[in-house]
Amino acid sequence: MEFKVNSRELEKLLSKVIPAVPTRTPMPILENFLFEIKDGLLTVYASDMEISLRSSISVVSEENEKYVVPAKLLYDIVRSLKDTTIHFKFTTSGKINIVTDFGKYTLNYIEGVNYPDIPKFEIDKDANEISINGNELKTAFDKSSFAMSKEEMRPAMMGTLFEFSNNGLRFVTTDGHRLVNLLYKNIKSISNNQYVVPEKAISVLSKILDDKDVTIRMNKSSMSFKLNDIELITRLISQKYPDYASVIPLENELTLKVNTKEILDSIKRMMLFSTNTTKRVKFSISQKELDIFAEDVDTGASGEEKVSCEFSGDNLEIGFNCAYVQDVLSHLTSEEEIIFKLHSATKAVIIEPVEKKENSDIMMLLMPVRLNS
Amino acid sequence: MEFKVNSRELEKLLSKVIPAVPTRTPMPILENFLFEIKDGLLTVYASDMEISLRSSISVVSEENEKYVVPAKLLYDIVRSLKDTTIHFKFTTSGKINIVTDFGKYTLNYIEGVNYPDIPKFEIDKDANEISINGNELKTAFDKSSFAMSKEEMRPAMMGTLFEFSNNGLRFVTTDGHRLVNLLYKNIKSISNNQYVVPEKAISVLSKILDDKDVTIRMNKSSMSFKLNDIELITRLISQKYPDYASVIPLENELTLKVNTKEILDSIKRMMLFSTNTTKRVKFSISQKELDIFAEDVDTGASGEEKVSCEFSGDNLEIGFNCAYVQDVLSHLTSEEEIIFKLHSATKAVIIEPVEKKENSDIMMLLMPVRLNS
Repeated sequence: MEFKVNSRELEKLLSKVIPAVPTRTPMPILENFLFEIKDGLLTVYASDMEISLRSSISVVSEENEKYVVPAKLLYDIVRSLKDTTIHFKFTTSGKINIVTDFGKYTLNYIEGVNYPDIPKFEIDKDANEISINGNELKTAFDKSSFAMSKEEMRPAMMGTLFEFSNNGLRFVTTDGHRLVNLLYKNIKSISNNQYVVPEKAISVLSKILDDKDVTIRMNKSSMSFKLNDIELITRLISQKYPDYASVIPLENELTLKVNTKEILDSIKRMMLFSTNTTKRVKFSISQKELDIFAEDVDTGASGEEKVSCEFSGDNLEIGFNCAYVQDVLSHLTSEEEIIFKLHSATKAVIIEPVEKKENSDIMMLLMPVRLNS
Repeated sequence: MEFKVNSRELEKLLSKVIPAVPTRTPMPILENFLFEIKDGLLTVYASDMEISLRSSISVVSEENEKYVVPAKLLYDIVRSLKDTTIHFKFTTSGKINIVTDFGKYTLNYIEGVNYPDIPKFEIDKDANEISINGNELKTAFDKSSFAMSKEEMRPAMMGTLFEFSNNGLRFVTTDGHRLVNLLYKNIKSISNNQYVVPEKAISVLSKILDDKDVTIRMNKSSMSFKLNDIELITRLISQKYPDYASVIPLENELTLKVNTKEILDSIKRMMLFSTNTTKRVKFSISQKELDIFAEDVDTGASGEEKVSCEFSGDNLEIGFNCAYVQDVLSHLTSEEEIIFKLHSATKAVIIEPVEKKENSDIMMLLMPVRLNS
């Protein structure tokens, strides 16, 4: 069995698929690509059993076969070659002979039948399909993925919630300390449903999405993202997502308006002074001035800064984890001004842009921490 | 005691000195800067006891004092501030109060007398001085530092030899497997001598050198590099440098001429196929063609490439450590063509550019490895 392919084209193909190859895995066979040659089309698959990626190119070949090929070594060879024709020959003794004008290389392959059943997408009666611009989807991930939980105790929170409703498509992430709630109003789906997409799918998609449209298909157990020339399929997290709406406070009547860059710069400096273990920072809010204070109990260093603000209430003191404040604010830097909606020193705080957008709503939630005063 | 300084100016000053602050040290006081304020001049020192760096700026202050100040925290604060005036106030209770228009910060200091005696340069009867362009010095380090040894058994080889003679200034580095020998003919010194400069000094200098001239002063035990606005002082390695000249073969009569980029690209691919532990690669040289072969005994993968060449001898087979060949060749990429001068499969190989330069000579040496054939 043999075929020929251009080195630059094969490099492009492999670079798309290799993000799904796991670096550490209890199943070493997943460190390989599956090469499927069928009717003059080479399809390359990679998977870590949670997500799978596949992409195809035309090759000159008349046979139909499947081979399991070392992923990293092959990718490293192909991308180190100049623009040339590569001639692949799979021998019956388990060797791949790769020949170019100036070199020949030999690798081992494994028969295709040994490759495991990787995530596939099957259309069933619950299947659903939408289309979304790739950049828009990437923006949603960029703004929300930081708040996914790393705690394995609650698997659903380790993913991103996709919620389809009459309002549009909503993305929710939370780790219990902060929450991101982003709604795209112009994405409508025929049915209302919730899907929890694992972190690995989100991070790989973030790398490969571009300004082209993406077709998302989903059923009860899996989701497919079809880009121009590549398809990512992911298993869904089966655990139900927590009821995020119930933790969003409704009575936060106090508003604190600040310039986003100004408060973020200040928070970044306060990070230097907050105690490493607690990262606590204190906001002392008055009508025109927000005073931010942090103290490192280990080194005795402390810092205090004043940020101008507009506050609708009387004086209020509230504590936060400085790192969480920085996370939230650094994902709102596209907004010039933001509003903190508060109720008291112990209630969750809502953070929103001052200027509303027509097609999307973004809202973040931050839990305060107790001040030892 | 107090003084005022512009944040950007102080940031520039600290950024120059901080490379000497050790990240791990048995003497925690070295994780600080020494601030010396004298006659309106602030001089900041940092040291790991092997090298020291110092730089100064004018400040508005009428007192003369020394303080030991947390290096990383202060540097992080200063560089996170916008362009503003910083007001430093050292209280008698061991606190530094740092005040700007919008914030105030408190750090702890230690009395200056507690800071250890760091490397200083003293002019003695053996002292000597030369001047060299900063870029030229940086180029010498860039081309040679990779070959310094990491083996603590032979301390001299862990540094770079500076050899002054009637021929000029010679830089030599070697780890016993490869050797770099670079001569700058236009640098003349009044006396002939050898100095061995530790790796840390070389790596810090590489970061701070620019196109300005550098004054190098040296005595028996230390060397000073005076740049425009910063001085680096390093202790010298006291062990005698090995007799490098005796390992350079004189009878290597066979010449192999190759294109540098072509052979380097090929060697990089062969790295993928060579066995991880030995990195062995085989050169089979004939009059017009160099055949490079590597085989990974662990995975069974192998690669073979042909590079066109001009060889003055009959057929010759010789083995190398692929990583060492790559190191040497990647530091000769400014040369279009290079010559390997060989004698036999067991003798050291000389690698030189085809085109000689008027003011400098560079020569590298590579030890072959045995081929199991």
